[in-house]
Amino acid sequence: MSRIAYVDGRYVPLGEPAIAIQDRGYQFADGVYEVIPVLGGRLVDAPRHLRRLERSLGELRIPAPLSGGALSVVMAEVLRRNRVRDGLLYLQISRGVARREHPFPARARPVLVVTARPGPGFPEDLDAWAVAAITHPDQRWARCDIKSIALLPNVLARQAAREAGAYEAILLDGAGMVTEGAASTVWVVDAAGVLRTRPLDWAILPGCTREALLACLAESNLAFAERAVSVEELRTAREIFLTSATSYVRPVIRLDGAPVGEGKVGPVARALHALLRRALVGEEAG
Amino acid sequence: MSRIAYVDGRYVPLGEPAIAIQDRGYQFADGVYEVIPVLGGRLVDAPRHLRRLERSLGELRIPAPLSGGALSVVMAEVLRRNRVRDGLLYLQISRGVARREHPFPARARPVLVVTARPGPGFPEDLDAWAVAAITHPDQRWARCDIKSIALLPNVLARQAAREAGAYEAILLDGAGMVTEGAASTVWVVDAAGVLRTRPLDWAILPGCTREALLACLAESNLAFAERAVSVEELRTAREIFLTSATSYVRPVIRLDGAPVGEGKVGPVARALHALLRRALVGEEAG
Repeated sequence: MSRIAYVDGRYVPLGEPAIAIQDRGYQFADGVYEVIPVLGGRLVDAPRHLRRLERSLGELRIPAPLSGGALSVVMAEVLRRNRVRDGLLYLQISRGVARREHPFPARARPVLVVTARPGPGFPEDLDAWAVAAITHPDQRWARCDIKSIALLPNVLARQAAREAGAYEAILLDGAGMVTEGAASTVWVVDAAGVLRTRPLDWAILPGCTREALLACLAESNLAFAERAVSVEELRTAREIFLTSATSYVRPVIRLDGAPVGEGKVGPVARALHALLRRALVGEEAG
Repeated sequence: MSRIAYVDGRYVPLGEPAIAIQDRGYQFADGVYEVIPVLGGRLVDAPRHLRRLERSLGELRIPAPLSGGALSVVMAEVLRRNRVRDGLLYLQISRGVARREHPFPARARPVLVVTARPGPGFPEDLDAWAVAAITHPDQRWARCDIKSIALLPNVLARQAAREAGAYEAILLDGAGMVTEGAASTVWVVDAAGVLRTRPLDWAILPGCTREALLACLAESNLAFAERAVSVEELRTAREIFLTSATSYVRPVIRLDGAPVGEGKVGPVARALHALLRRALVGEEAG
């Protein structure tokens, strides 16, 4: 089945040329995006993703291309046309098409693209889900809180990870502090057994799964501190795991080639994976 | 006349959808570009731009989509089809079209886009060419030596300049040192009368016009030092000017609302404008 995309009011085959050369998303990375997981035909945590999308648009002063209601209809239609039960929905909004010039054009109309694709469901086997990571300098811009399509530094970091036989690059700022993964939030159980993740600032994306997990944590009795982690603390961590919309909770069991803790999935990651599963998938899907 | 673009082997109307949704230029800003000025139907300094393009591609490990000879043919054809005598040629190369995933795809083929548009010729009236600028934090990534299409921070800086009634944003790093303009190289005649510009590093683009001007300087007897400028030195400068492929030498006569030096075009900018004119346009065009 050929995949179908929604582009600026039309449903078109995904492979067909559909974007204008002068779309500012193509010439300036002047746009934002979201990836929303799909489980059992249902968008997971859609309100959180759409709130974040609205925030990203607001920070860049790009008007919303559709009302919330109309956008929901489009998203459902894209899932339907692509028959996606488990997978992900991708949504991108650029500032629109205009003669190439850096400042915001006077009369551009934002361009919305929505695609969907099948993928694995919720990862039930956490041991098989675990990955290796590398550390990598954070070379990104100063406003990583905006989920923009200016992802070239993320691409290069993920490529470096792959070439090192790893899945994710854990990014370090100039002071040697962890910011986040190239496409995930980083969590650490430190040597003292305290679960930690970086507080929100301009250096990291406000992760939807991060937020969902924080809500789960409130119900747990785990020792937790929202405090940044140094590279030394990362290397002596008992556990490291990542969260993202498509990674859910993803244990990191090797870092820069060395085992993390005992080199296997730790108890905190396992407990939080179960809590997140209950929050996102519900009891009935078990 | 409707403008014609070259896209991946075809000549198409510029306004027609021609780019795939999954072009990595659109989803990841995974591409590079060049802007080459056109004067009297001739590309200005094309070898310098093409060398820089090759360097940008090399840094990102994107293969060249065409041989140099074939690219020259395409560029000439785009100029011809658009009847551009004075203006600019725009050239963009993305890593290609692939299923969306951060690391480099195994089998993508780079996508080349070439467009051209008419514009003003060489600016003969330097007083009319002078502009205002603002200072602005440099929020860009760590590899601004690569001429990538991840231009969102540049867009935001130029927009801030426009909203302040200015043309360019002069970017300051965390230490209060000038890096460059949002789309230009910054030059200063400091309080001691020494012409200065920042040495090349990862924080700035190796400007083609910067390089052409350095060659001109070798023939002049101006006091010159390739040394970074602090924001304090910027504010007490006798002269500030910008260079870029389409700005040539562009005096800055107001900075953050205050006059630069005497608030008019200075003698060094005027002398270098004449030297650059001779180098790029030649005597005969006078």
